[in-house]
Order: sequence, then structure tokens, then C-alpha cells
Amino acid sequence: MARTDWKAEAKALKKKLKALKAALAEAATDAVEKVNETVAVAVKATKPAKSVSPLAPKGGFPALPVIRGAEFAAVEAGVRYKDRRDVMLVRLAPGTSVAGVFTRSSTRAGCVRDAQNKLAMKVPAGAGAAIVVNSGNSNAFTGKVGDEAVAAVTGGVAAALGLPASRVFSSSTGVIGEPLPAERITAKIPDLVAALSEEAIRDAAAAIMTTDTFPKGASATIQGEGGPIHIAGIAKGSGMIAPDMATMLVYIFTDAKISPVMLQRILSRNVDDTFNSITVDSDTSTSDTLLLCATGTSPAVPVQGAVSRAFEKALAGVMLDLAQQVVRDGEGATKFVGIRVTGAATPEDATKVAKAIADSPLVKTAVAGEDPNWGRIVMAVGKSGALAERDKLRISLGDLVLAEKGWRSPKYDEESAAAYMKGDELVISVDLGLGKAAKTVWTCDLTHRYIDINADYRS
Amino acid sequence: MARTDWKAEAKALKKKLKALKAALAEAATDAVEKVNETVAVAVKATKPAKSVSPLAPKGGFPALPVIRGAEFAAVEAGVRYKDRRDVMLVRLAPGTSVAGVFTRSSTRAGCVRDAQNKLAMKVPAGAGAAIVVNSGNSNAFTGKVGDEAVAAVTGGVAAALGLPASRVFSSSTGVIGEPLPAERITAKIPDLVAALSEEAIRDAAAAIMTTDTFPKGASATIQGEGGPIHIAGIAKGSGMIAPDMATMLVYIFTDAKISPVMLQRILSRNVDDTFNSITVDSDTSTSDTLLLCATGTSPAVPVQGAVSRAFEKALAGVMLDLAQQVVRDGEGATKFVGIRVTGAATPEDATKVAKAIADSPLVKTAVAGEDPNWGRIVMAVGKSGALAERDKLRISLGDLVLAEKGWRSPKYDEESAAAYMKGDELVISVDLGLGKAAKTVWTCDLTHRYIDINADYRS
Repeated sequence: MARTDWKAEAKALKKKLKALKAALAEAATDAVEKVNETVAVAVKATKPAKSVSPLAPKGGFPALPVIRGAEFAAVEAGVRYKDRRDVMLVRLAPGTSVAGVFTRSSTRAGCVRDAQNKLAMKVPAGAGAAIVVNSGNSNAFTGKVGDEAVAAVTGGVAAALGLPASRVFSSSTGVIGEPLPAERITAKIPDLVAALSEEAIRDAAAAIMTTDTFPKGASATIQGEGGPIHIAGIAKGSGMIAPDMATMLVYIFTDAKISPVMLQRILSRNVDDTFNSITVDSDTSTSDTLLLCATGTSPAVPVQGAVSRAFEKALAGVMLDLAQQVVRDGEGATKFVGIRVTGAATPEDATKVAKAIADSPLVKTAVAGEDPNWGRIVMAVGKSGALAERDKLRISLGDLVLAEKGWRSPKYDEESAAAYMKGDELVISVDLGLGKAAKTVWTCDLTHRYIDINADYRS
Repeated sequence: MARTDWKAEAKALKKKLKALKAALAEAATDAVEKVNETVAVAVKATKPAKSVSPLAPKGGFPALPVIRGAEFAAVEAGVRYKDRRDVMLVRLAPGTSVAGVFTRSSTRAGCVRDAQNKLAMKVPAGAGAAIVVNSGNSNAFTGKVGDEAVAAVTGGVAAALGLPASRVFSSSTGVIGEPLPAERITAKIPDLVAALSEEAIRDAAAAIMTTDTFPKGASATIQGEGGPIHIAGIAKGSGMIAPDMATMLVYIFTDAKISPVMLQRILSRNVDDTFNSITVDSDTSTSDTLLLCATGTSPAVPVQGAVSRAFEKALAGVMLDLAQQVVRDGEGATKFVGIRVTGAATPEDATKVAKAIADSPLVKTAVAGEDPNWGRIVMAVGKSGALAERDKLRISLGDLVLAEKGWRSPKYDEESAAAYMKGDELVISVDLGLGKAAKTVWTCDLTHRYIDINADYRS
């Protein structure tokens, strides 16, 4: 056995000790960094990033039929958003009939009043028409400067397309009360005109999004006399959704041959049961606009008789589909909820009860929490102002009767009700047992994400 | 210099190294534990436990004057909550006048209908009266079983106190639609009667709390002819607050000598500007009840003339104080917000605008986010249905004018507005510039905590 060189070993040990101490200091620094990272991740996890609504239609944006005579384009104008298209243009062929419904807000935006005035002028359709829309800024409550911005944008489009200004409609959606940088839009008009294409409706649907998480489209095709008639529509909307006679922004196109008067009549008849029957947050926008444009390019003869009824039914279907997509993209929504009221004494009472339930923050937070808290439905019926009698009321979740004859149903089973609430599509039914009036509305739940989006919308 | 004993030093170093390695292993284990703890704390921080509202009155529950002839008691009956008092009893001396206002909900609870019926009977006050209240279960929408529970509780109290049943009023607050275990309350009546004391009003205020984070009391004293007249009131309420002709639960006591008819008249006159001017979440309770009891035990002569006016003013002050405390304890509230509308064409319009702003989830989330997003105030004015003209509207935050003459004010300064929003007491003023009608309402912000409380209220 060799004699140990204690001096050498001691020196080696000293060196080892020094290295270990250094490694320890480094490890301590690393550990602090790891802790900070972990905490940052944990905090971030409570504020999920913007992602597509879990209620979005599964197949993505649908394949929409081409409407001959309706051309679309979208560009990046940098109105507010960066790195995305935010302005869209639609050119409509000569002879297009245009009909519209708008928000009844007393503080509605200048572009809404402008479009209403232009529609009221009943300018002959011969010249054609155009629609120009920007997202990121609603140009609402911006006074005379805002009115001038509307004139600059619609005037610019009219000049570029050779249209009378009275046939160019505009919409703006986004922040309220900020001046609209109209020059950023007018500077892009040549690019928009150059890009016009009958195939580009999806680009237009994407350009009008604000807090939306997916672009919204729907279509229908019916057989006219002499050929098919197509309907294709797009919409945007996610928050400030409690439409009053219209909705956020909706544009529907058809190649039907139909007069403006008939088109308006059919449109107005179908707004109450579609866009006026949805609510996200009970707040009514200053910009709600729905324009329906019929290019008349279908080979079918003008719409009349049985075809008119089929057309109206198909149009109502497209409107309802788009309206429900707006709810499915409600800010922070995780549940799509139909509220079906029957047995009301009057149609007004049916609507009052349905809206009271759909707008109740207590009902909506219970839905978010998957809690079958039907007591809050009773509360909402009670506050609605509609005629209701405790002992005649029946409340159901899907097929499960929760309450009837003035109390919890003997068939009530908390476990089944709780299981039902886990679904992402729910139907709440209330039968008032008093008359024959009925009303269905659609809404979504109220979640933390709604507050994340809206507590800090402008920054 | 001594010769180094390298062998000893090497052994000592080996020992040191071993100890250091052990310490290192322990430190690593500690570090992992620390990380886990830190993450747990970070996660918990996003879900704060129930704690007293930051808007609670600073001094805690106020010292209320004793009202001779009104005795209070509170006990633990275990109706739903554990380890806290949940039933309170008030005994009122013979000769006490009682007045009341109640929710107008069509699904109001059995105890509310019972109290309304009893007040309508105008039973002479000679016998005295009593009020019994439980928290944890509202006994609302519980059918005939619920009506029987009301009869059992009020009948039990009447028998124990030697009162006619028609002079015993009851309230219940808590979950809707669950059967009220009346026997748990009736079993405690002897304990309640034994504990009655003129000093125990704070216990009563605490026993009626549900999601409240602090008990609410307010008082006033005026000089009557021949002696002082005292008023002392308590209230509960935190969510489902958008009272319609009354509020959650409020009990106000006075030793004034005053007839039931005069008492009711004064009470009814002052409800609209106090309890009907607050909202937490736009949802109206099924149980709102306000009872005002005058024992007549003051040495002062019966209330009349100038004293009557002073009494009404003092009572209105107590009512407003209690109403504002309910808002200060609004579920999840971090900001107390006054909404002052002036210049409306009619009183109805002033109220419509004030309530539209106070109930708007978009305005309330902006307040929570300390964002001076006045565009949402414009939106709420627009949706209210009241007459409004863009170019006459003026919107202010405190003394800062944000918008006027149809647009952002030239004096507008985002930094000052943002700084103002950091306060916990805000005033939003809207002048419609059309007439002379005005209305002020009070509300709070809409925060994550509201959703935490209400997504999972029943479990």
C-alpha cells in the first residue's frame, strides 16, 4: 500500500470544496430563476390567451356559394390592429336591391345614421352599390369629425368605383370615441379595388372581426323558377351583444331577382326571431347593422309565390345560423344556451321572461359553474315583470323536469341535472302554464374570460 | 510557524465535504418544497378567500342607539351554515306601529306574501309584534311545504311570546328552492326568547348575513317635542341586488310615537331614492323585505309638523346609509360608484339612463379594470331607451369632463382620467342637456370574485 500524500490530498480536497461552493452558488441562482419562471407560468395559466371559442362550428368557416355580382376584398390598413386585415370592401353589380336594419341606440354611430339616410333615399339600383367596413375603431360618438370621416371613406369608394355616394354604405366596429383615421382607409382604396373577387368572402368575414375568435358565415340555396337562387352571409360580433332591431355587423348577399321593397319587408319580418333573439351581455351596440343585398344575377325569374316563401325560409335560416354563431363566439363563452319559454299569457310576456333569464348574471354564472341552480331561473321569471304563477310554472333542463307545481319536482335528481350541465349546449325550458305564447332566445355563460377581455379592452 | 498536520487537515476537510453534501441534499429538498409553497400561494392569490369588502365602513359596525321596546336575540340553529348564528328574533313592545315594503317579484317567497297579508290586515298594534329571520335558505319556490314552514315558524314564535300569529313577521334568505328545515328553527325558539335583549341588535345584523362580508347598521337621533327620538336599522344584502320597491332584508326601529298609516306613508315616499336606487347585478331577489317598526317608547309626543319633517329626513338618511352599505358589500366589489344623471327630459328618462349605466356589464368591468372607457357610458345612454342627443351629452368622471358636444372633450386627459379610476369611490356624471330631471343611483364593479362566488354558490 502506498503511503498517503496527505498534503496533496488536502490540497485536492480544498479545490473540490471551492468548486462545490461555486456550484452551490450557481445552483441557488438557478433555483431562484426557476421559482420565478414557475410562478410566471402559474399566473399566466389563470389568464388564458385568446383562442378559438370552444363553441365554434366544428368544420371551420363553411364553403359559401359564389353570389355573382358581389365581389369582395380585404386589406391591412392599420386602423388599429397590426399584422391583420382590417378593412373590407364589397362591390355590388348594377341592379342590386339593398335592404337594411340598424340599431335603435340613441347614441348610434355616424356611419349607421348615414346608411339609414341613404337607404331612405330609395336611390334606383341601376348604378350598383358598395359596402366598406373597418374594424378596430367604431367611429361612434366622434361628433362632426366622425361624420366627416364617414363622408371621406364613402366618398373615396364612390369615386374609385364610379358610383353615386348615396349608394356606398359603411360600417365601423371597435373602440368608441376615438377619432377614426379615415386617411389610412382611403389610402388603401386602390388596393381594395384591385383585389376585388367574387371568391373572397371569407377574407371579408375575417377583416371585420374584433374580439371575435372565428369568422362567421352561413348559406342556403333554393330552387327558383329557371335556376337556383343562392344566399351567402357573414357576420361579426362577440361582446356588446343585445341587439335591438338588428345585430352587430351582418352582410347577406343573394343573387335573387327581388325588389328593394319586397327585400326589406322579408328582412324586417325575420329580424325579431333571429338577431333580436340573442344576447351575450345585455349591452346594445352603437353600431349594429345588417345589410341584405340582392344582385339579381340568378338565372331564376323574379322571386314570387311559392319561391318567395322558400326564399324567406332559407333567408331566415341563414340569419338564425349567423345569429347563433355570434352567441357561440360570445366573449368568454364556454356554453351555448337556448332559453325556450312557452305557455305565456302574451308574446310580450314570453319575450320578457326569456330575456330576463338570458341576461341574468346569476343564471349565467351558474351555467359557467355547471351548477343546475334552477332557483335563479325562478328569480329571473319573478323579476321579468311578466304574469307568472308559482304553482303553474314548470322548469326543465333538456328533458329533465326540475320544478313544477310550485316546487322542486318529485322526479328531480341533482346528479342527472349536474351531469346535464356538463354539456356545452344546453336548453333551459320554462312553461308558464298560462297561455299559448312562446319565445326562444339564445345566450352564453358569463365566465372569468369575459372580465379579462373587458376589464382591459382598450390597452 | 507550526508545521502543518496535513493528515489532520485532510480528514477535517473530508468531514466538511460530507457535511456540505448532506446540507446540499437537504437544501435541494427544501427548495422543492419552497417552490411548491410559492406556487400554491400564487394560485391561491388568484382565488382570494372570503374577506371583508375593501369598501366596508372603516370604523366597523357603528354604535347604534338603544330603541326601548325592541329586543333582539340571535342563535345558531344550523339551518344551513355551521358554527355561526343564523336565526334572529326581534320582540316589539305592545303599541308598536309596523310598516313595510316588499319585492314585486312574481315568484316572491312565501314569507314575503305572508308578511304582506298580515300588514294588510291592519291588526291593532296593542298586542306588540315580532320578527323572526333565518339565513342560509330563502324558502322561496318551495310550494305548499314552504307555506307550512312559514306558518310553523311564525306560529311557534307567536305561541312563545303570547302574540297573535298575525303580528309575527318572518323572512328567509339564502338558497332558493330547497325545503326550509323549520323544525331546526322552532327548536331554538326557547333559546331565542331567553336571550332577548335591547342591546343585541349587532348579533341580529350578523345572523342575517349570507354572502355579506360585514354586518350593516345605521342610526340617527332627532329632537322631538319632549325628548329625543332614535332610529336604528340593520340590513343584509350582497348579491341578487336590483331592488324593486324594497331591498334585500332591512329592519329599521324607532322609538317615535307614530301611527302605522303615517309610518307607511313616510316609508313608501323614501324607498325610490334609497333602496330602489342601488344595484349590484341587476338581478331582483325573491325575498326583498323592509320592515319599519315604531315602538312609541320615546318620551317625545307623537310625531307631527316640523318634527315629522325632521323624522322623515333622518329616516331617509338611515335608509340611504344602509342601501349604500349593501352596495359596498356587493359580491366581489372593489369600487363604489355613484351614477348621477342630470338634464333629462323626464324623471323616467333620468332613471332609465342611470340604471342602464349602473347595470351594464361592460361599464362595470371597465371600472374593475380602472379603465376610463367612457365610450361604454355612451353605449349605455344609447341603449337606455331615454331621449338623448349626441351633441348635448356631457360625461364626467368626478370633476373631469370626458366628453361633451358630441365628442371627446378638448380638456380630456387620459392620464388624469386613469388616475381618477384608481380611487375606490367614483362618481360618473351624465348631463343629457335636455331638461331638468335628475337621478342618482349607486352600484359597484364586476370582478372575477363575483364569478367565483356565483359559479359555485350552492356547493
